[in-house]
Amino acid sequence: MTSIGVHGLVFTGRFDAQGIERAIVGAARAGFDLIEFPVFDPDEWDVDLTRALLEEHGLQATASLGLPEHRNVSSPDPAVSAAGESFLTEVIDVVAAIGATRLCGVIYGPLAKRLAPIEPAALANGQAALGRVATAAAARGIRVSIEIVNRYETNIVNTAAQAVRYLDGIDGPIGMHLDTYHMNIEEPDMFSPVFTAGERLDYVHIGESHRGYLGTGTVDFDSFFHALSSTGYDGPVVFESFSSAVVSRDLTGTLGIWRNLWDDSDDLAAHANAYIRGALRAAETIRGH
Amino acid sequence: MTSIGVHGLVFTGRFDAQGIERAIVGAARAGFDLIEFPVFDPDEWDVDLTRALLEEHGLQATASLGLPEHRNVSSPDPAVSAAGESFLTEVIDVVAAIGATRLCGVIYGPLAKRLAPIEPAALANGQAALGRVATAAAARGIRVSIEIVNRYETNIVNTAAQAVRYLDGIDGPIGMHLDTYHMNIEEPDMFSPVFTAGERLDYVHIGESHRGYLGTGTVDFDSFFHALSSTGYDGPVVFESFSSAVVSRDLTGTLGIWRNLWDDSDDLAAHANAYIRGALRAAETIRGH
Amino acid sequence: MTSIGVHGLVFTGRFDAQGIERAIVGAARAGFDLIEFPVFDPDEWDVDLTRALLEEHGLQATASLGLPEHRNVSSPDPAVSAAGESFLTEVIDVVAAIGATRLCGVIYGPLAKRLAPIEPAALANGQAALGRVATAAAARGIRVSIEIVNRYETNIVNTAAQAVRYLDGIDGPIGMHLDTYHMNIEEPDMFSPVFTAGERLDYVHIGESHRGYLGTGTVDFDSFFHALSSTGYDGPVVFESFSSAVVSRDLTGTLGIWRNLWDDSDDLAAHANAYIRGALRAAETIRGH
Amino acid sequence: MTSIGVHGLVFTGRFDAQGIERAIVGAARAGFDLIEFPVFDPDEWDVDLTRALLEEHGLQATASLGLPEHRNVSSPDPAVSAAGESFLTEVIDVVAAIGATRLCGVIYGPLAKRLAPIEPAALANGQAALGRVATAAAARGIRVSIEIVNRYETNIVNTAAQAVRYLDGIDGPIGMHLDTYHMNIEEPDMFSPVFTAGERLDYVHIGESHRGYLGTGTVDFDSFFHALSSTGYDGPVVFESFSSAVVSRDLTGTLGIWRNLWDDSDDLAAHANAYIRGALRAAETIRGH
Repeated sequence: MTSIGVHGLVFTGRFDAQGIERAIVGAARAGFDLIEFPVFDPDEWDVDLTRALLEEHGLQATASLGLPEHRNVSSPDPAVSAAGESFLTEVIDVVAAIGATRLCGVIYGPLAKRLAPIEPAALANGQAALGRVATAAAARGIRVSIEIVNRYETNIVNTAAQAVRYLDGIDGPIGMHLDTYHMNIEEPDMFSPVFTAGERLDYVHIGESHRGYLGTGTVDFDSFFHALSSTGYDGPVVFESFSSAVVSRDLTGTLGIWRNLWDDSDDLAAHANAYIRGALRAAETIRGH
Repeated sequence: MTSIGVHGLVFTGRFDAQGIERAIVGAARAGFDLIEFPVFDPDEWDVDLTRALLEEHGLQATASLGLPEHRNVSSPDPAVSAAGESFLTEVIDVVAAIGATRLCGVIYGPLAKRLAPIEPAALANGQAALGRVATAAAARGIRVSIEIVNRYETNIVNTAAQAVRYLDGIDGPIGMHLDTYHMNIEEPDMFSPVFTAGERLDYVHIGESHRGYLGTGTVDFDSFFHALSSTGYDGPVVFESFSSAVVSRDLTGTLGIWRNLWDDSDDLAAHANAYIRGALRAAETIRGH
Repeated sequence: MTSIGVHGLVFTGRFDAQGIERAIVGAARAGFDLIEFPVFDPDEWDVDLTRALLEEHGLQATASLGLPEHRNVSSPDPAVSAAGESFLTEVIDVVAAIGATRLCGVIYGPLAKRLAPIEPAALANGQAALGRVATAAAARGIRVSIEIVNRYETNIVNTAAQAVRYLDGIDGPIGMHLDTYHMNIEEPDMFSPVFTAGERLDYVHIGESHRGYLGTGTVDFDSFFHALSSTGYDGPVVFESFSSAVVSRDLTGTLGIWRNLWDDSDDLAAHANAYIRGALRAAETIRGH
Repeated sequence: MTSIGVHGLVFTGRFDAQGIERAIVGAARAGFDLIEFPVFDPDEWDVDLTRALLEEHGLQATASLGLPEHRNVSSPDPAVSAAGESFLTEVIDVVAAIGATRLCGVIYGPLAKRLAPIEPAALANGQAALGRVATAAAARGIRVSIEIVNRYETNIVNTAAQAVRYLDGIDGPIGMHLDTYHMNIEEPDMFSPVFTAGERLDYVHIGESHRGYLGTGTVDFDSFFHALSSTGYDGPVVFESFSSAVVSRDLTGTLGIWRNLWDDSDDLAAHANAYIRGALRAAETIRGH
């Protein structure tokens, strides 16, 4: 059974105690089943508070992140790659400690515009590290998935078809995380990547073409939800949207959020929750017709 | 301010006292502001009950219909056209009596597959009659609008551009009613007809390509809602869907409903209410961006 | 290897000697590989001329049709159903005689708006007859396929999912013929029906939502061509468009063509040939990306 | 009358004599009316050769570019802004010398991912400089237009609605250049920005969502061409596509082209020329219907 979730950055740009509470309360109030935390600072994460609040509000959690440059598992420098691997292990400690079972996102490198293609040695370093990380995570009941993002955020994998080949090069239990915002830039359509991913599809981000309210951009969500329904996908479906009204100035810069497409997190989140549940309910009614 | 409504046939195939109550209660429970009644039998309509129930549930109402062959205002036979005109006048009496202010639908002819184009004399009969009907209605505070439907349901007007020319031939205060189900078959896209209609657009039906749950077919609703928002449309937006589970066998035949795309009127209606309100809310957030 | 074709009604409304020549010359001049003939009158068909002209112009041919009421294989009356079966056998004689290898279209009934659902006995008569027809045709090297059309043209099968069930009830080598014009009305999207049909997909009609120039309506052709490419479809892809400028008055009525969306068959056909070849070429470039 | 063109980078990554010839010959052979040159190095440009080859092949030309950081008119540093203004003046000399009449592209800044929003003073420097540049260009019969690009390529203007406000702040004869690739990321849909731009729309780039063959991605080109046709746009329509097979390694990095979506410039260009002409021809047939 699919869980419907929301990314924590919809509610807060900081994940200190107050931010964690804001995100959990916001997600629960908007009607979601699940909150996704960007665990950029595992050291600082208040795992006890998180676990308690999740229980109090009856929410599940997942974790995602992008790597800092000095902890890039896909670095050509083995020391940097090893630092990235250690870092991912720390993040998985947090995932376990908050009672979550999934780590996803751009865990194979930084969220950054590159100026040259990735070198084969760097690629191989990342794949080897991820295989070990995913294997260790699986032993702790945690599933690891890689998010496929657009050309401006990584030079490693931009499409589901590339991700299949990339994952084939990893020795470990690791799957794919698709995001409609990125698919709209890189994929042929919103249907075929779901079939291309097939059983490897572990996790889904629902984001509009410009990161605003669902239905206000160019993403063909109907095709995507029909595809999810056709293939019987039952993993998490998580809403993601960014506005400089909430996100920190640093991340605003990283993501290129120059417009405020919304100010009211709660209105946005309630809208998205209704939108996603409505779309999944609708897709169900058409199956077999 | 736009009112969000639902067609009575979502709830019942008969509009006797029980049917009227079912429709009003269903519309109110699903969260709509407005119920559209297909007033095929003005003689039989229980106007007092309707008015009382509308007040009790805080709902607005509108009326729509298609003409029977023997009361076709667009008949080449002047007597038949005159019978249609009288019939429309009776319908307007019902509209006034229930406290409504709009009559729309295929008031220019029968909902029927034709085997030959309309003759010019028949067309002119219909335009003259509608001009008089609309003028008399306006004097009673009622706005009359013609619904544009597909080639299988009329041979008179199938597109907004044709409707502009057709309305130009009518001497009276009459507007246009667009329906996404029909637009999907006849129009170039879901955006331009709204601009083509412009100020003449009075009324909107939201129907999916196959008449099922919104979002399960091929209609590009996002473009349509963006167009409504761009032009500042503020008339009613009314959901329409048919299933042989509810609609009478006769109307099922007229409309060609061979599949049950839903059985549960209340689930369908609640879904549509959330869908339309969500889409309008979203369109509002993107204006000016 | 896919053959790109065009329906004969793009060029002529009559299939006497002159009409057959007009269609073959038009198809060849526009760059098509294949011409589809509507063989409504097998008795009258000039098979020698057709065969000679096809050879002269290096074209392949296919045949399609809808049944007249008195030869409806899906009639509840066994005698009418038998008359339909004989008629289809005659049509197959023509198919063989002109050197063609495919019969498709609405061979299971009339192209007509029905006022009530099909009765089970009538359905069964049609399935039994089609099983025999397809078996006999296969023995002569001819493949039979049923075209899925919209609710206004049949009450038997309107979607690929229904067609799978319908074909499952037929004992014989028979496949499915999808048409984008009808899919746009009946299917959830333009992608999934191709997967639903799978190996059963034998034949494809490319028609715009209003039957006009490709690209001027609401059909999502890109998704459809991506789907054909994804599944490796290699059967015929045949353009279909109707205008009262060409089609006979009778068929114009049957199809509900009240507008002239084109007058110049040759311009339309050349446009469609370029469109389809361009779309297939493009879809090929994206496979595996 | 609209001219159909192609960007020079479809054919060559270098614009030395050989590159210029390759681009002009390629554009003419593929059937285009116009070639767009990226004039990054006006000093080095062989204007005599260009002019001669354009005449020989009967082609029009236009120029476009993005600014280097040290010549950024939108720099907070007045000296850098002034250097940018001088640079644009040099580019306009080239435009005039090759017999062209348009300068477009990202002439208001570098094509680069920014990490913070633009400062108001920097913005004002750019607007003032562009006003002077456009005024001087107009005196020489050259029209200047700014290209609206996505968040990853500029932090100045990402949508048509923003561009209207930005242009309102410029004192000079300057218009807007829309690009479907960028619109697919930033705009609500492919229709409304054309209406938002209105009379300010001077120039159009046709690019697919991933920069590959037209029709292989998520851009809704039909809506865009319908919008161009509806508003009566008659400026240039120019195809743009990038592959690391052709583009220089530097620009590949700048644009984030990590995949080869094509290798054969000539096949791609002929396909695009047929696609665009077909789409414009089709849009014409539906006007007024």
